[in-house]
Amino acid sequence: MKKLFDSCRMDDPQIGEEMYSWAQELFPLNRSLTGDGNRKTLQFIQKIVPALRIWSVKSGTRCCDWTVPEEWNVEEAYLIGPSGARVIDFHENNLHLLGYSEPIDKSLDLTELQDHLYSLEHQPNAIPYVTSYYKRRWGFCLSHNQRKKLKKGLYRAVIKSRKERGVLNYGEIIIPGKTKKEIFLSTYICHPSMANDQITGIVVLTALARWINKCKKHNHTFRIIWIPETIGAIVYLSKNLKQLKRNVVAGWQLACLGDSGNFSYLPSREGNTQADLISLISLKESVKKYKTWSFLKRGSDERQWCYPGVDLPVCSVMRSKYNTYKEYHTSLDNLKYIKAAAIQESYRIYKNMIGVADENIAYKTTTIGEPQLGRHNLYPTLQKKEMASSVEEILNILSFCDGNNSAVSIANKTKTPIHKCINTLKKLRAARVIE
Amino acid sequence: MKKLFDSCRMDDPQIGEEMYSWAQELFPLNRSLTGDGNRKTLQFIQKIVPALRIWSVKSGTRCCDWTVPEEWNVEEAYLIGPSGARVIDFHENNLHLLGYSEPIDKSLDLTELQDHLYSLEHQPNAIPYVTSYYKRRWGFCLSHNQRKKLKKGLYRAVIKSRKERGVLNYGEIIIPGKTKKEIFLSTYICHPSMANDQITGIVVLTALARWINKCKKHNHTFRIIWIPETIGAIVYLSKNLKQLKRNVVAGWQLACLGDSGNFSYLPSREGNTQADLISLISLKESVKKYKTWSFLKRGSDERQWCYPGVDLPVCSVMRSKYNTYKEYHTSLDNLKYIKAAAIQESYRIYKNMIGVADENIAYKTTTIGEPQLGRHNLYPTLQKKEMASSVEEILNILSFCDGNNSAVSIANKTKTPIHKCINTLKKLRAARVIE
Amino acid sequence: MKKLFDSCRMDDPQIGEEMYSWAQELFPLNRSLTGDGNRKTLQFIQKIVPALRIWSVKSGTRCCDWTVPEEWNVEEAYLIGPSGARVIDFHENNLHLLGYSEPIDKSLDLTELQDHLYSLEHQPNAIPYVTSYYKRRWGFCLSHNQRKKLKKGLYRAVIKSRKERGVLNYGEIIIPGKTKKEIFLSTYICHPSMANDQITGIVVLTALARWINKCKKHNHTFRIIWIPETIGAIVYLSKNLKQLKRNVVAGWQLACLGDSGNFSYLPSREGNTQADLISLISLKESVKKYKTWSFLKRGSDERQWCYPGVDLPVCSVMRSKYNTYKEYHTSLDNLKYIKAAAIQESYRIYKNMIGVADENIAYKTTTIGEPQLGRHNLYPTLQKKEMASSVEEILNILSFCDGNNSAVSIANKTKTPIHKCINTLKKLRAARVIE
Repeated sequence: MKKLFDSCRMDDPQIGEEMYSWAQELFPLNRSLTGDGNRKTLQFIQKIVPALRIWSVKSGTRCCDWTVPEEWNVEEAYLIGPSGARVIDFHENNLHLLGYSEPIDKSLDLTELQDHLYSLEHQPNAIPYVTSYYKRRWGFCLSHNQRKKLKKGLYRAVIKSRKERGVLNYGEIIIPGKTKKEIFLSTYICHPSMANDQITGIVVLTALARWINKCKKHNHTFRIIWIPETIGAIVYLSKNLKQLKRNVVAGWQLACLGDSGNFSYLPSREGNTQADLISLISLKESVKKYKTWSFLKRGSDERQWCYPGVDLPVCSVMRSKYNTYKEYHTSLDNLKYIKAAAIQESYRIYKNMIGVADENIAYKTTTIGEPQLGRHNLYPTLQKKEMASSVEEILNILSFCDGNNSAVSIANKTKTPIHKCINTLKKLRAARVIE
Repeated sequence: MKKLFDSCRMDDPQIGEEMYSWAQELFPLNRSLTGDGNRKTLQFIQKIVPALRIWSVKSGTRCCDWTVPEEWNVEEAYLIGPSGARVIDFHENNLHLLGYSEPIDKSLDLTELQDHLYSLEHQPNAIPYVTSYYKRRWGFCLSHNQRKKLKKGLYRAVIKSRKERGVLNYGEIIIPGKTKKEIFLSTYICHPSMANDQITGIVVLTALARWINKCKKHNHTFRIIWIPETIGAIVYLSKNLKQLKRNVVAGWQLACLGDSGNFSYLPSREGNTQADLISLISLKESVKKYKTWSFLKRGSDERQWCYPGVDLPVCSVMRSKYNTYKEYHTSLDNLKYIKAAAIQESYRIYKNMIGVADENIAYKTTTIGEPQLGRHNLYPTLQKKEMASSVEEILNILSFCDGNNSAVSIANKTKTPIHKCINTLKKLRAARVIE
Repeated sequence: MKKLFDSCRMDDPQIGEEMYSWAQELFPLNRSLTGDGNRKTLQFIQKIVPALRIWSVKSGTRCCDWTVPEEWNVEEAYLIGPSGARVIDFHENNLHLLGYSEPIDKSLDLTELQDHLYSLEHQPNAIPYVTSYYKRRWGFCLSHNQRKKLKKGLYRAVIKSRKERGVLNYGEIIIPGKTKKEIFLSTYICHPSMANDQITGIVVLTALARWINKCKKHNHTFRIIWIPETIGAIVYLSKNLKQLKRNVVAGWQLACLGDSGNFSYLPSREGNTQADLISLISLKESVKKYKTWSFLKRGSDERQWCYPGVDLPVCSVMRSKYNTYKEYHTSLDNLKYIKAAAIQESYRIYKNMIGVADENIAYKTTTIGEPQLGRHNLYPTLQKKEMASSVEEILNILSFCDGNNSAVSIANKTKTPIHKCINTLKKLRAARVIE
């Protein structure tokens, strides 16, 4: 039961393996905008963080420009070839089925079938991830190599799916802090069996929620959500916009946290929020190299959090960004593509950013001119030729406690490592020379 | 009867030749601050744009720190040499006469005459353009080569000019739009026979006025004026300052639009008005190369439009800037120095800037989070691996519709060509997802 | 009895030698936070500038986080070696005594004595300057070479010092100007016999005060103080904060003005005050080369003047900055280390900055559009091909008289030397075209 900031840099050498084991269990589930796969995913998270609340929103609910779609579930789906054998089976890989496919049971020859097949000519071994949420379609996805081997003849396409009035689910956990001001963390749960671009966001956010929930003391309230992308975010905003706008001081959209690529930073619209400042100082101090993307290249729910009128202070820190690695949105983004050590490192970075965010307060000096640091045991009693650099650092930190600079901007302006800066600020506050 | 924005990029391959033919008619007139040459110039414009109103302001009228000068007209002016032949004749080239010369009929020998002669030692073939508006003088201008050939002996200087109470004239056309907000265009009419630094501004602005007046739909009101430099601008400001300050959202001072030099951009005082942004994006997208001048190098009526307390959002786009080409303010700035193709290109750039200015509005999103673009036929129904770049572009444009960014700054921030950006904004507005 | 601005660039070739002679008299005095040496220093200044007021603040006075210390005076202090001879004597060099030493008369052997000796291993010929203001200690400072020669045996340490309720003194002179707005100048008087890092600040500020006091006309009120560092500044702030915050428009902390190093500029916290702008333009125009330091490297009373909540527009212009030259805070910072010519040059720079500061007012144009400069004899009556650069300069200066730009920022924006700019502004004001 540590304080959050104090524990944010503690190592947990097993956590990578633990998160990887969660990934193995979550990977096979058939997630989509709605359906059993999503509920099972949320229930799995709930086992780890019991405080998680699973919300349901009915199909047909209007949310601004959108309508919550019908719930989609799949019993089985397969394609029987001219020889009578199953040539494609949803149970082998749920990417084989076009997302939100209509039910069908139909015999048709190969030429006719081609209109319902999706493959990637330039990645002939990969099954692509394709969906048709808002237009009625049915179809199968397969590797281009497999497609080329399909023989002429009569096929039978069987999709036992149901689209019916049901619910859209999402998970939310709110962990109260000293203030109502919130730190906001979000990831998506709408992708079927893909590892980096789905599972890693879920498992890292789950581990973070467990850690935050166990910490005894933190300043901010934490709001952590697992939602279907886009429609889930729209639903969430339509229910919580006022409170989010009033309270959120910093937030992150989690995605793509498990491959071996360098870290990436994707800024908020203007790139000047507290979340941006914290991300940049943390990456600068924690990793050798990271890539900064343009906001124009965003693609996950930052699209919603940073939309005009919403304007939450949210940015994103990832490893290889979605849409920039070739395995993205194919069957090659699988459990082999991600590494326990890489997920662990992402977890470490996020813990660090969250710890800093929780202490990223603006302080103000209380004295007219410098305080007598000696009285507070912060100044040497003997003045020699050179001012100790530790004293210089304290005086510099004090000199930016003008009520406008947060801890991160004080660290930036005084060139002090952020944890050292926060620790000094805590000491100065204890000595009552800042408030 | 096209809409203004839609027609602003239409080609009019004959317009260069047409403007050049106007230039041939306007070139010989003896323009100055006042007089018949100015009235004839304005009447010529009125033939092309009948809506033009010609204003008269009486000599002696006080305008702030200034007084409208007496009207100046010249019947004839010549210098008879020792041989009895005319060695200089105003009717050959009106630059031969010092601007605003007093009348004189006097015999004097060459030495005495020299005080009344103006030539350029370093441009020995050019007759310089010299004026003395506010101090009584008489004089002749001539090429330095001609001056050197003047023989000793008795000369007779004859200037039949009149300076008397009359009027200062200027032309104005106001074309109402949907809003009272104005786009302001201005050029000067006070130079005698010079082509680039006089005639090109007049003919391009005349062609623009005719085009705008013919367009059926435009958002802004257009205010277009042809005035004598400095005193004309001061007169105009003293009559219209309040309205100009209230309504003008962007404006341009037209000058030097006909030589073969690269385009030049001369910013407003702070360089941050809508006119500056529009000029820069238009030049960037329309021409290979252009030169940016310092505001400190301004020299035409931007001096007045950008004066402290006036502060209109006006800048200038030219070809070779006044005072930077050697033919400037001499008889070498003649009809040979300008080209129909160059005037046409200037006209094209200004049409483009005006079209953009007329659509340069700030938009605001109307939905909480992104709209469902699919419902508006702006999003593919099938989601594959890569988001179509057209969709990315639409989402990026939407994400800057925060009510603060005008179309040009949205185009800059999303790196979209300005016409494409405006067309997308119009579509989004039609779909009611922005307002 | 010249006007301040007019005399600020006048040469006074004797002033360097005069200030150096003052330095010779002031150097030997034993200054500290309090005591006779400080009073004698202030009385010396008073002889030169009789308007100086010497203030006394009682020991024990509480000032925010601080308490004014007891007054410290030294009668004599010496160390007698095993041979019976004085090996260290305060009267030879007051740096030999640890600042604020307790009285003592004690025999002790060399080993025990070592705890009370201070020397610098890496500067074996220098006596270091060491103090212990707020913790009771006694000690001697000596060169490392001397220390190594100390023989084993019994020593007698005699320090006849008194620490008792008394006063802390500082000097202040206020020279009223046309407005209550103030220019603030400060230096410290708490160092014993060191030349560059003590005496030069005192003598340059004394000469400046004499000059300002003799000038007949200046716009601003001048507030000039000589105070013990840190505690003196805290005392001064606690008595004058409101008035300082209300009135000070620019100020400088004077220090280290006598060595042969290049000039240094140490900015205010944000580096954007009028004092910063004036320092930069003056240095740029007056010296070939100068070094800009980070605010993080400040060390004198800028620490107090720029403290959050105090926020005076104060920066510092020095020659070699304190803490950057090896003689700093040792006996090597003596009268040989400083040069009359160097002090004179510093005086010249400060006079120039003060003259500019006194005229650094924002002006506003009074006319609608440009005034008719010809009427005010500021424009040629004959307009030829090129606008005279003097006219261009006047028009450029006018075009930034928008009520927001001070003289210095007008000079910066129009690229005009600052004195020329101020003189032009004065002419334009006399012509009533700006106010």
